[in-house]
Amino acid sequence: MARNRKNRRAEPRNLKRGLPPGAAVYTGAPRDGQVRVSVLRYTTESCAEIANIDFRACVPSPKPDEIVWINVDGIHQVEVVTTICGAFGVHPLAVEDLLNPNTRTKVDDYGDHIVAAAKMVNPAPPGLGGMFELEQVGVVVGPSWVLTFQERPGDGFESIRARLRGGAGRIRKMGADYLLHALLDSVVDVTAEVILSVDQRIDDLEAQPADLHVQAHDLRAELVALRRAVAPLREAISALLRAESPLVREHNKPYFRDLYDHVAQALDLIDSNRERVMSLVQLHLAENGHRLNEVMRVLTVVATLFIPLTFVVGVYGMNFKHMPELEWRYGYPAVWGVMVLMVLGMLAWFRSRRWL
Amino acid sequence: MARNRKNRRAEPRNLKRGLPPGAAVYTGAPRDGQVRVSVLRYTTESCAEIANIDFRACVPSPKPDEIVWINVDGIHQVEVVTTICGAFGVHPLAVEDLLNPNTRTKVDDYGDHIVAAAKMVNPAPPGLGGMFELEQVGVVVGPSWVLTFQERPGDGFESIRARLRGGAGRIRKMGADYLLHALLDSVVDVTAEVILSVDQRIDDLEAQPADLHVQAHDLRAELVALRRAVAPLREAISALLRAESPLVREHNKPYFRDLYDHVAQALDLIDSNRERVMSLVQLHLAENGHRLNEVMRVLTVVATLFIPLTFVVGVYGMNFKHMPELEWRYGYPAVWGVMVLMVLGMLAWFRSRRWL
Amino acid sequence: MARNRKNRRAEPRNLKRGLPPGAAVYTGAPRDGQVRVSVLRYTTESCAEIANIDFRACVPSPKPDEIVWINVDGIHQVEVVTTICGAFGVHPLAVEDLLNPNTRTKVDDYGDHIVAAAKMVNPAPPGLGGMFELEQVGVVVGPSWVLTFQERPGDGFESIRARLRGGAGRIRKMGADYLLHALLDSVVDVTAEVILSVDQRIDDLEAQPADLHVQAHDLRAELVALRRAVAPLREAISALLRAESPLVREHNKPYFRDLYDHVAQALDLIDSNRERVMSLVQLHLAENGHRLNEVMRVLTVVATLFIPLTFVVGVYGMNFKHMPELEWRYGYPAVWGVMVLMVLGMLAWFRSRRWL
Amino acid sequence: MARNRKNRRAEPRNLKRGLPPGAAVYTGAPRDGQVRVSVLRYTTESCAEIANIDFRACVPSPKPDEIVWINVDGIHQVEVVTTICGAFGVHPLAVEDLLNPNTRTKVDDYGDHIVAAAKMVNPAPPGLGGMFELEQVGVVVGPSWVLTFQERPGDGFESIRARLRGGAGRIRKMGADYLLHALLDSVVDVTAEVILSVDQRIDDLEAQPADLHVQAHDLRAELVALRRAVAPLREAISALLRAESPLVREHNKPYFRDLYDHVAQALDLIDSNRERVMSLVQLHLAENGHRLNEVMRVLTVVATLFIPLTFVVGVYGMNFKHMPELEWRYGYPAVWGVMVLMVLGMLAWFRSRRWL
Amino acid sequence: MARNRKNRRAEPRNLKRGLPPGAAVYTGAPRDGQVRVSVLRYTTESCAEIANIDFRACVPSPKPDEIVWINVDGIHQVEVVTTICGAFGVHPLAVEDLLNPNTRTKVDDYGDHIVAAAKMVNPAPPGLGGMFELEQVGVVVGPSWVLTFQERPGDGFESIRARLRGGAGRIRKMGADYLLHALLDSVVDVTAEVILSVDQRIDDLEAQPADLHVQAHDLRAELVALRRAVAPLREAISALLRAESPLVREHNKPYFRDLYDHVAQALDLIDSNRERVMSLVQLHLAENGHRLNEVMRVLTVVATLFIPLTFVVGVYGMNFKHMPELEWRYGYPAVWGVMVLMVLGMLAWFRSRRWL
Repeated sequence: MARNRKNRRAEPRNLKRGLPPGAAVYTGAPRDGQVRVSVLRYTTESCAEIANIDFRACVPSPKPDEIVWINVDGIHQVEVVTTICGAFGVHPLAVEDLLNPNTRTKVDDYGDHIVAAAKMVNPAPPGLGGMFELEQVGVVVGPSWVLTFQERPGDGFESIRARLRGGAGRIRKMGADYLLHALLDSVVDVTAEVILSVDQRIDDLEAQPADLHVQAHDLRAELVALRRAVAPLREAISALLRAESPLVREHNKPYFRDLYDHVAQALDLIDSNRERVMSLVQLHLAENGHRLNEVMRVLTVVATLFIPLTFVVGVYGMNFKHMPELEWRYGYPAVWGVMVLMVLGMLAWFRSRRWL
Repeated sequence: MARNRKNRRAEPRNLKRGLPPGAAVYTGAPRDGQVRVSVLRYTTESCAEIANIDFRACVPSPKPDEIVWINVDGIHQVEVVTTICGAFGVHPLAVEDLLNPNTRTKVDDYGDHIVAAAKMVNPAPPGLGGMFELEQVGVVVGPSWVLTFQERPGDGFESIRARLRGGAGRIRKMGADYLLHALLDSVVDVTAEVILSVDQRIDDLEAQPADLHVQAHDLRAELVALRRAVAPLREAISALLRAESPLVREHNKPYFRDLYDHVAQALDLIDSNRERVMSLVQLHLAENGHRLNEVMRVLTVVATLFIPLTFVVGVYGMNFKHMPELEWRYGYPAVWGVMVLMVLGMLAWFRSRRWL
Repeated sequence: MARNRKNRRAEPRNLKRGLPPGAAVYTGAPRDGQVRVSVLRYTTESCAEIANIDFRACVPSPKPDEIVWINVDGIHQVEVVTTICGAFGVHPLAVEDLLNPNTRTKVDDYGDHIVAAAKMVNPAPPGLGGMFELEQVGVVVGPSWVLTFQERPGDGFESIRARLRGGAGRIRKMGADYLLHALLDSVVDVTAEVILSVDQRIDDLEAQPADLHVQAHDLRAELVALRRAVAPLREAISALLRAESPLVREHNKPYFRDLYDHVAQALDLIDSNRERVMSLVQLHLAENGHRLNEVMRVLTVVATLFIPLTFVVGVYGMNFKHMPELEWRYGYPAVWGVMVLMVLGMLAWFRSRRWL
Repeated sequence: MARNRKNRRAEPRNLKRGLPPGAAVYTGAPRDGQVRVSVLRYTTESCAEIANIDFRACVPSPKPDEIVWINVDGIHQVEVVTTICGAFGVHPLAVEDLLNPNTRTKVDDYGDHIVAAAKMVNPAPPGLGGMFELEQVGVVVGPSWVLTFQERPGDGFESIRARLRGGAGRIRKMGADYLLHALLDSVVDVTAEVILSVDQRIDDLEAQPADLHVQAHDLRAELVALRRAVAPLREAISALLRAESPLVREHNKPYFRDLYDHVAQALDLIDSNRERVMSLVQLHLAENGHRLNEVMRVLTVVATLFIPLTFVVGVYGMNFKHMPELEWRYGYPAVWGVMVLMVLGMLAWFRSRRWL
Repeated sequence: MARNRKNRRAEPRNLKRGLPPGAAVYTGAPRDGQVRVSVLRYTTESCAEIANIDFRACVPSPKPDEIVWINVDGIHQVEVVTTICGAFGVHPLAVEDLLNPNTRTKVDDYGDHIVAAAKMVNPAPPGLGGMFELEQVGVVVGPSWVLTFQERPGDGFESIRARLRGGAGRIRKMGADYLLHALLDSVVDVTAEVILSVDQRIDDLEAQPADLHVQAHDLRAELVALRRAVAPLREAISALLRAESPLVREHNKPYFRDLYDHVAQALDLIDSNRERVMSLVQLHLAENGHRLNEVMRVLTVVATLFIPLTFVVGVYGMNFKHMPELEWRYGYPAVWGVMVLMVLGMLAWFRSRRWL
């Protein structure tokens, strides 16, 4: 039962902070390793990448049609985050959110830039307990630049990079807001994989319900945590769609509506999986109750049949001097007759109650 | 329990796609067989049908009062779908949705065309497990044309075609938006048949509750899946009614309101069926509990009556040399007397507790 | 358990119709008997009634201050309904709804007339199972005319007719919208009677909970069906109050608000009855559980007391040649002593566990 | 279980009325005793009271800055209510509501007067069953007058009268709408007392859970009835705050917001009490289940230990001529040895299953 | 079970007050000790503190860019509160709320000042039962002043004071509305600590579920009380964000949105903890049910095996003169054979039912 505790515990820690809001302090677990910063600049025609760059060199592009995407792997070096954010004029409160690995999923509109915080729901490494781990992902979008901050090394956005490099698709033509959409969509994609594996695990449990109640307890906890990670994203996207931000242009809104549907579908599936787990537990309880009834019926039939007979034979096992029946010629067969009649009577009674 | 797994599993797969949104790729299970395209052109006066047409020949009609309805059976040949959609100027995102057999039920307004995605809830072929299978249906409506895309061959829209051929009814006069309504209405009609069969199965279960808990578990899963297929349609139609799209004209809105009621009624029925299943399970559990009580009472009465008596006769079956009672003249009848008194006392006590 | 099936089954049938929406076809169960049409014309001063009239003679009144109320008992003769509706210009979709005995409760505003469909919840004839039967009632209201359609003969609106004849009250002065209010109010009144009888039945069940679980199951089904019949009316009236229809005049809106409260109160009562049934079932389950505990405790005490004693006397019933105890002078009393001590010890232990 | 039936039954009766809406008829239980009418006139400077006044003499004050408060104790004399209401121009529908002791809690805005109907939740007289009785209270507020109607004699508004007499406070200066607020606030105050006593009773039940399930059933019924009496008031006040009635002036709205909070707090407490009752019932059920487990374990251990032993000694109690063991020198000790081994083995097995 | 009663009881008392609304009366539990008033004045450049000041000397600052923060520790001396509030023109209703230690959490906008009432959820001193105690905190914000009222001595706002003294941060520059945000944020911070300790306790319970049901009952009560303390704050902040008050300036709104998220996260955690407790209880119940099944199966197997055997040996323990079997040469081994066969048959039957 203690398996996935570490996972769940991660989040509450966020709640406690004696710090002033807006303070640029990393509030996650201590972590080492160099923070890696990479830059990708693209226009409709070209796409240039620099894998490892000094974070002090990150600035918005002077060319209006060029879009700059800066990706930061690791948020535990405060200076990196604040320097880059400073160069792009990100609001201090947003910087605080970006540095906090427990920021609640949300999309905030700061006028000239939009800040999205989300949980990437990565499948957990096997053998560690829990089915997934949450990774904080922050995205800041300006008119012609995008900053992404990932809590851990290892890159969930490689497929987007590949699409940018490829250049054939829409992605190079549609602007920074489209890139925001693509990034959040790939976050939901990863989540979907985890939901699928939960779905699979419930299928397995349905097929072979060993240890069902403990597993159902775990699964419920996983699904609650998943829901908590995913649900706010739906509301955030819905708010973004309603908002009149010039950063999300009208012709790109269908993509965000599509993203909304994507999240809604994930939530639907989480909810119906929860329903399935509950139903499975109820089925199992009902079957156990049925089995108990069965067992008790057998016990009762056997005991009710034999306990009176045992009494009867006990009677004639007594050693009284004066027991006339013992002397009778046909005493013994008579007792057998009585006992057979008793058994037949009880069997008839059982049958009348449908116990047999 | 594993019966309807295939059915349910179909949907999650949708969630996982490493693909760029809007990419024109078929994401369903592999499927062969030629995709059939048929065209039906009608005005108030006339109606012409071509059953099998080259998909490259599908174009909007130049005549303003003619409405073109193109039906595509099968969405696994990407080229067919993209070519036709391209000819009518359908948004790339909509094309992606049309190609995806797991698109969530929705109605999207792209300005100059409306795209509806819905699940046709077909009754499942017998012997396969599960009560229904979902078929993706896509409808695109422009000012004077309608495109329909069905996942599988076999035609759910034949009755509408018949009404168009007949020509007497409203359907030829009311424009493309009315045809959208008719198409969605027939989708709901098919769903209603499945709901009715679930209703029937619950009736059967009520009459003869064999294997009740397993069946209730299955039924709950079916009803959850049904709800997930139907519920988004209600919201989608409600959004369409609120929207100010010129494609859904004011004088046709009552038909969409009617459709809304139709869907709402289906959902009502799904919900009350769910309630019925839950109530049935509870009734069954309560009856089992009652029976267990009954069984235990009988066991307790019998055991409590005879166990002490068996002890008593055991006492006088002991072989001690010096047991004065055994020598008594009336020892044996005395023991019987004691035992009869014990039985009477216990019976009185049972009666005072209402166990008899 | 199969009792009220007929009742419930009536509704789903509606869901399945391969028919074009708006088609004027009667979709209920086959029914014979002549459809009776009666007309009542009233102004503030006068009131004239014709009990049986040819349906072809029904037309709006030429006098602007006269209100015509046409009541049709029976909707299974399509021609009657369509002819009358045609004379008053009722929308085809509304005609379809009026002909369908399973139309969902709703109030639709068609601009120059309002169409209300509701369920009259009549008490069921005794001995038939189920506590009520639903009768479809349709009301169409124009500026100076009202049409009512009732599924079955037998008149639920007689009291309104009497008030119109009486003439003293408000009803003759307040126009067609007030009559709509009066008609819907009398529908709710009849419903209230049924709710009261359910309430009464729960009271009876509380006083004497024989067969409680089966009855609770039935009652839950009745309450769900009642809720489904009544709840949409609340929403429909609320929509009517918000709508800006000139047919519901401002000075009559308080009456519709009153009607709204009336329906809301009925729903409140349905909900709290449902809560009562659930609570009663839980109470009964808890009491059964308590009784089971009691029974098991008695069994355990008796068995635990006597089984060891029976073993002890069994030991000295053995027939070994060499059993020194059997020869002892005080062997028999010693065994008794041991047994008494055992009993006392066990009684003390039972008491320490509060089993006695 | 039948205790608080009278209380609950009172309400449904309201639902059934074959009467025209707006008819001035008293619909409560028959009641006698003279209806008492008292008048209180106050300005900022003065306050005059007449305790018993002829109801025909009640008229609005000609002085614009004087506020007239007429209180009627008893609504069973229709003439009294209609005459007074007539003099102040109260809407007929409102008069009907005032005469009906079962009017649903609501606040209606009739333009030039506001009518509030509420339930005063009085503590029930001891020994009668149920924890409270509902008293209908009606308040009508015009620009410079207030009418209050109470179902029963005995005055819940004495404290307000005292404040008016005192004259020091705000109440004399703030107008008729402030008086409405004060009256409704005192209704909520009385309700709060009852809620407190329910709270207390749950505390008692927690401390000594005798008869818990029956009491929990009763408490749930009480809380449902309380909720039904209080909840509509919150919505009604919220509607009043949103409405643009000139009768509730802007500078007095904070008082109504305060009232809203007061009601919301009462509802919070009702809800959390309900939660507490449910939790208590679950705790008790869980404890009973635990005890049953305990009892069964003891029974199983004792029976499993001794039943085999009893069989063994039974074997050597048989009277066969040829039983070699009986002749053995050490047969008897050998049997004891076997039995001791059996007991030890079973104890070890019990321990391995943690039954000991 | 009676542990945290004191805590919970504190709140209802609020509901009962026969007092006129807006009366300046302290309604909490009696309390002594001098009320301490301290003042802190700050501008962007400077910050001056006076720890103990006469409450009559508290007035708004004449300098427009100076912000005055007056903190009052203790609200049981009415004069202190009313005098200070009078000097700043606080609305009488707000004063009443500030004096009431049970005011519901809310944020009221009085035009030229905003009044917030909240519960500080302090961890309870150990050994007292309950996990937290609620402390009423009131905050009044004007254009350039802030008043805070704390129910008890001991200062939850010291960290804010420290930040003001420090002067480096944003807090000195952002105005009175930012200070309101900082104060409410620190209230939520303290709450978060308590939620964390509940979370911790559930972890402990999961690891070692001794006394689980009683603890779960307590935890549920704690979580309900926590929810009741925190939930209204979310709505209050949301209302503040929507409101157009000039006191909350646009450029500070992101901080309130951040606060909103903070509260929402706390509520999320409360809800998922509740879910965890429920799931844990269900797991435990299911495990108990499983164990009961196990125990019963063992009992049934043992009893069913040995009861018939005991009967058989009882038969041959009878003392009839004429029992032919007893004389047989191989009677005794034959009985053993019969009994072995019976055992084997029953074992086979048990195996076929999967009881072994």
